[in-house]
Amino acid sequence: MERTKKIRIQQIKEGQMEEMEDQVVMEYPLTIYLNGEEFITLLCSPDSSEGLTYLALGFLISEGMIAEKSHVGKVAVEEDAGHIHLQLNNKTDLKQKLYGKRTVTTGCGKGTVFYNVLDSLGSKKINEDIIYDYQHILNLSRKLNQMSALFKETGGVHFCALGNREKILFFHEDIGRHNALDKIIGEAFSKGIELKDKILITSGRLSSEMIIKAAKKAIPIIVSRSAPTELSINIAKDLDITLIGFARGNRMNIYHGGKRVSRKAM
Amino acid sequence: MERTKKIRIQQIKEGQMEEMEDQVVMEYPLTIYLNGEEFITLLCSPDSSEGLTYLALGFLISEGMIAEKSHVGKVAVEEDAGHIHLQLNNKTDLKQKLYGKRTVTTGCGKGTVFYNVLDSLGSKKINEDIIYDYQHILNLSRKLNQMSALFKETGGVHFCALGNREKILFFHEDIGRHNALDKIIGEAFSKGIELKDKILITSGRLSSEMIIKAAKKAIPIIVSRSAPTELSINIAKDLDITLIGFARGNRMNIYHGGKRVSRKAM
Repeated sequence: MERTKKIRIQQIKEGQMEEMEDQVVMEYPLTIYLNGEEFITLLCSPDSSEGLTYLALGFLISEGMIAEKSHVGKVAVEEDAGHIHLQLNNKTDLKQKLYGKRTVTTGCGKGTVFYNVLDSLGSKKINEDIIYDYQHILNLSRKLNQMSALFKETGGVHFCALGNREKILFFHEDIGRHNALDKIIGEAFSKGIELKDKILITSGRLSSEMIIKAAKKAIPIIVSRSAPTELSINIAKDLDITLIGFARGNRMNIYHGGKRVSRKAM
Repeated sequence: MERTKKIRIQQIKEGQMEEMEDQVVMEYPLTIYLNGEEFITLLCSPDSSEGLTYLALGFLISEGMIAEKSHVGKVAVEEDAGHIHLQLNNKTDLKQKLYGKRTVTTGCGKGTVFYNVLDSLGSKKINEDIIYDYQHILNLSRKLNQMSALFKETGGVHFCALGNREKILFFHEDIGRHNALDKIIGEAFSKGIELKDKILITSGRLSSEMIIKAAKKAIPIIVSRSAPTELSINIAKDLDITLIGFARGNRMNIYHGGKRVSRKAM
């Protein structure tokens, strides 16, 4: 599916009105059905069936609905309708989880379970002692920026990538920061890739919900080309996550966990 | 409450590590209690008691929980705890609305009622024939940009303003685009200001949820310094809302509703 569309607009420039073409970013409603029951609609960027599947899986993982591959049965995407149907096999909890989740839905800063989430993460302190070289981190950030053609085209989407000590493993774009991260989590889940020694790179601001999503999957290093919030920094400190912001050009700010960043070249 | 905080960070720049000070934007969890019952937690920027009240009111209006002043009784903000208590007088519907809303919570692109919302708005086509001069619109956008000191300081917040044909009436900042708009809606509600002949100006991208929030209050002209999505443009066309993007310097893009934009100076 196309992620942008050319449309006709009127532009006023220094008093002159002109008809012209403009490229705008698409927004696509994807409704998730679990075992035949409508669960939730995500507004996201149009994507391949694969991308939409990763998004739905990542969202369900982030929301604690599924945790392992055996939980997921058949998946069917109806692209034109904007539907994705998932058969979940962890039925015992599902109804309760569905109900429970619905009463506390988070999303762009909403969630009555905010502190409960932090509490439950308290035990998940990151013990991973993997070390990434700062030049490698900057290279990944640079590469990601080059790859993100859509970002450059319209300035309207966020991107998110998973890397290891060699390269970028995969990356996703979406109009929603959370969606891009959920796609990463969903793809890693689908491919059976462990996240606990990987690096997450994102274009967008690191709000607390981004950190919490990443922390739930025990990602030890989170890098943004933009800024973290103060709450994110506190969470990173609590959970001992390496948090890096403004990774651009030859520079990065380390907000916590500098011990996982080496400067071999020096 | 302070909206930013100075913290110590490590910066690596061209291989050199340096300890320095950095200013980061705060994120503040505000839990809304309705008639003593916990309803939802919003993650927002710290604000004055007044600002937090506007946010809570605006959120409840946007979610269809309240519609007129008589619905709201006592309001009490506990800034340090991050709580706001509202007494609502439209009790008959409240429980049902509470329950109903919780099953369909929207927020950053989530909401099973997405199409229902559009359907119910279908009857709310904007009939307002007020005209704003394009130079005035650009002036408001420029002024708002100057006013937004916080935006410049940290690059981490969005702002939103309400204007009329003379000036900017009030403006709000928040780390969440939706929150900034909810504050505008809440302040207008508190002050008994009609929105149906006003202009809304925002720094952030115009996603469908922003347009829907504004459309619910029948705001006829929506202006952004950034881009709209294609879905937003479609909604603007359906509801005949004037939608303007990239209002910067001497230029603006009109995506729909050019009839409400004049060029007197010509």
